[in-house]
Amino acid sequence: MPTKKQDPTSSQTSLTNGIRRRLAKKTAYDKLLDLSKAIQVFGTIRGLLEWDQETMMPPMGAGIRAEAFAAAASHMHKLKTGLKFTHLLSQLIDLDSGEVLSHEMDPSQKAALKALRRDHLKAIKLPPSFVKTFAHAGAAGYHAWVRARKEKKFSLFAPQLDKIVTLCRKEADLLGYTDHPYDALLDLYEPELKTAELSPLLSRLEIALHPLVKELTQKTAFNTDCIKGHFSAEKQLQMGKELLYKMGLDPEACRLDTAVHPFCSGLHPLDTRLTTRIDPHDMTSSLSSVMHEGGHALYNAGLPEKDFGSPLCESVSLGIDESQSRWWETLIGLSLPFWEYFYPQLQKVFPEPFTKLPLSDFYKAINTVKPTFIRTESDEVTYNLHIILRYNLERKLIEGSLKVKEIPEMWNAEMQRLLGITPPSDDQGCLQDIHWSSGGLGYFPTYTLGNLYASQFMASFAKDRPHWEDEIRKGELAPLRQWQKENIHRWGRTYSPPELVKKVTGSPLSEGPFIAYLHKKYGLFP
Amino acid sequence: MPTKKQDPTSSQTSLTNGIRRRLAKKTAYDKLLDLSKAIQVFGTIRGLLEWDQETMMPPMGAGIRAEAFAAAASHMHKLKTGLKFTHLLSQLIDLDSGEVLSHEMDPSQKAALKALRRDHLKAIKLPPSFVKTFAHAGAAGYHAWVRARKEKKFSLFAPQLDKIVTLCRKEADLLGYTDHPYDALLDLYEPELKTAELSPLLSRLEIALHPLVKELTQKTAFNTDCIKGHFSAEKQLQMGKELLYKMGLDPEACRLDTAVHPFCSGLHPLDTRLTTRIDPHDMTSSLSSVMHEGGHALYNAGLPEKDFGSPLCESVSLGIDESQSRWWETLIGLSLPFWEYFYPQLQKVFPEPFTKLPLSDFYKAINTVKPTFIRTESDEVTYNLHIILRYNLERKLIEGSLKVKEIPEMWNAEMQRLLGITPPSDDQGCLQDIHWSSGGLGYFPTYTLGNLYASQFMASFAKDRPHWEDEIRKGELAPLRQWQKENIHRWGRTYSPPELVKKVTGSPLSEGPFIAYLHKKYGLFP
Repeated sequence: MPTKKQDPTSSQTSLTNGIRRRLAKKTAYDKLLDLSKAIQVFGTIRGLLEWDQETMMPPMGAGIRAEAFAAAASHMHKLKTGLKFTHLLSQLIDLDSGEVLSHEMDPSQKAALKALRRDHLKAIKLPPSFVKTFAHAGAAGYHAWVRARKEKKFSLFAPQLDKIVTLCRKEADLLGYTDHPYDALLDLYEPELKTAELSPLLSRLEIALHPLVKELTQKTAFNTDCIKGHFSAEKQLQMGKELLYKMGLDPEACRLDTAVHPFCSGLHPLDTRLTTRIDPHDMTSSLSSVMHEGGHALYNAGLPEKDFGSPLCESVSLGIDESQSRWWETLIGLSLPFWEYFYPQLQKVFPEPFTKLPLSDFYKAINTVKPTFIRTESDEVTYNLHIILRYNLERKLIEGSLKVKEIPEMWNAEMQRLLGITPPSDDQGCLQDIHWSSGGLGYFPTYTLGNLYASQFMASFAKDRPHWEDEIRKGELAPLRQWQKENIHRWGRTYSPPELVKKVTGSPLSEGPFIAYLHKKYGLFP
Repeated sequence: MPTKKQDPTSSQTSLTNGIRRRLAKKTAYDKLLDLSKAIQVFGTIRGLLEWDQETMMPPMGAGIRAEAFAAAASHMHKLKTGLKFTHLLSQLIDLDSGEVLSHEMDPSQKAALKALRRDHLKAIKLPPSFVKTFAHAGAAGYHAWVRARKEKKFSLFAPQLDKIVTLCRKEADLLGYTDHPYDALLDLYEPELKTAELSPLLSRLEIALHPLVKELTQKTAFNTDCIKGHFSAEKQLQMGKELLYKMGLDPEACRLDTAVHPFCSGLHPLDTRLTTRIDPHDMTSSLSSVMHEGGHALYNAGLPEKDFGSPLCESVSLGIDESQSRWWETLIGLSLPFWEYFYPQLQKVFPEPFTKLPLSDFYKAINTVKPTFIRTESDEVTYNLHIILRYNLERKLIEGSLKVKEIPEMWNAEMQRLLGITPPSDDQGCLQDIHWSSGGLGYFPTYTLGNLYASQFMASFAKDRPHWEDEIRKGELAPLRQWQKENIHRWGRTYSPPELVKKVTGSPLSEGPFIAYLHKKYGLFP
């Protein structure tokens, strides 16, 4: 809520009733925030429709669900681009220049106005007819992709993907850009990041990773069969929940379910829905999903609930959001201190096969580095090379220097260049990801940004709490969560991603801390 | 969908393009139905918000959930009472007289228009400010009721209930009535039923039941401890699901979960959500909930899906809806033929305690007749006396001949008169039901109507399929479901409740078939 209700009985001043009335009257800012909240309430509804669809909905409910989803989205779009919103917003901020017009705004109100202007300008640039065409192409694209992947034939997907790429290029034109059309798409997911900054960053990362992958593939080679077994779904879920509560999630304000593709849905800071996937033969799969989604969930739960409906209570970017998930999943969940704390508990829950397996072997098994075809199955060292590959392809698709039909050849060539392996078929190559099928070009880089941000934030955290490893080793996860909330979560969209990174770490985004982390971790590898 | 898309290539006529265009143009009726569907899509959303709240939502999500619920409801109300809806509707039907103005409407379209007019007139008669005040009073009433029931003190609830009764009387005035103010409330739940018809009906029922209760309390006395035991929740749920599928629900179009107060939420004919409550010591509790909610669910699933968004795809009244649930719960679920089929399965799932318990003892245990304080725990014979008591009280509250503070005394006196027992405290008396706390006066009679309709429909079904008991005995539940769908479900709101009962049974609503059913069943009691 932007303003607090005044308690008239506690007033000690000699205000006349007239002035009191004027003070009590809602300002344009209050009204704008009320409207923004009304929109966000439908965002919560849309979130529930999505979560339910992936976890609970009977399959035959899909038809009416698509209509409900479209109705909620279109209602939100109408409110966001409507006269009332435009009128209130333009009273407070110059829509062209972004200059805040009211002199009574405090810094957080100014930040909220800038974010609202940003969203509004994006929304009005895409006409409803284009949004509809895009949505239909995405739905058709998804179905074509499912079929193509099943039949391992990229050619079945290519015509639809061609339409989608054309629409994405059109989208970039509609949204506008000054330097590179890919900038317009990137900005949808990672505000203010430009291709001109991202390309050299990823090149430096690639150069640093190349020798590491070779070296670590040999150094960490280990037969991972020792951690396989039979793990009851119920026990895995129970263990996942207890870990989430230990990480700092409130059992009264979240829930954990299963889904085919794990995700986290933040309906509100007090209602976070997490999901995981259960592999009955490998409990590490669910546990790493739980920690990953738990990181997203902590971000959602750490947003300032009192500002719900304002950008101040929204995640700042997909990359920063991903940094919170990868932090818990990899920097903590694959670390020795964490397992020194958690392994005895795991052994208690699953005596078979872990009682007889030394911690050092378990640690080695979950940290082997080995090039794989599938991004989602890759280790933390090779993972970013999968992203670099996708980034190179989609950037070229958008700038028009790569044709859709050339994707499989270029995919396989890049895979060979970056990871030294060639997928035997397209389902293990260019058909493996869902993202492009529904038009999500520009999204992939945020995965790598998440990894880089995470290491960079972690380095700052380590400076602030030099004994953090001892704390984790003792199962004290609260200090980390507190630090994340204090430095990142509570700010919402007060700062842009570059401002936030600078504020928290003192430096701009860089690949350095991530590479340093890998060197340190694998330098000590048992 | 009101109209089918024409396939232009299949047209064999010589229509000019001009006429084709005119035919393809949407009529006012099409537009009205499109708008009605757009409203109903938000009804689906509201249904999901409710279902999730009762089954899945983390407790701390309650605050934002209330806002989401209000947003969806207010958006629906706006659309229902808006200029566009009013304009389209009044082109097709005279809002004052109810006369259909367009000559091109077929009977089902006429029925849809009449139902839409009915809903519209009700909606515009209640100003948004009144709806808001009522909702707030209901929320406050609910909290006061919870506290009062916990502390067993009616006086803690009385002030809020007083406000609610005043608002209900105001509501009756706003909605309008010609004879009795209670008619206006009754009509919200059971269209077209009047107090002048209901009162004598319930009096006749009371007179018929009075001697029966006395006689059967002695005749059916039986120690029911023999059916108690330890029943795993998982097995109870699994058995419930299999029974629902056997009853004719599609596993791909429904789901069963647990809730504190079992209910059925029909989001769409292809997405029905059922709930049940698990008693670990008494499996009959969940099974009877499953069959009850299963009856509601079959009604929802049997509505004509192609008409979703139109009144033709809506349940016609709470009483008729309740008849479908009580039919399965009591007329089938407490019958000997059903248990001749189902008892061996029950014995297989729960060998303990049922292997050694003869079917006749099980049948006796689930059919004992005995006056109880609590309506929801009462048997099928005494149940309607609980409703008659509530009806007598709430009718008097609305007409002003009973004061709120007099409720406990009158409740206990009526309980003594009707059932021969007096509750030891208000939580087992006038504080036991939630309905009044949120303003649902006029609702209770639909429970008894459900029982009466069910027996009346059942008598017709038995005439159509004289060997129905043999079919049930063989586990053939499909013919009953088919008959219900054919005669009741598929009509939605095509007919009013009195029209439907007349059409299906040849007679108006009567207590006769229900009393005849009881006499026959208990005449044969082992």
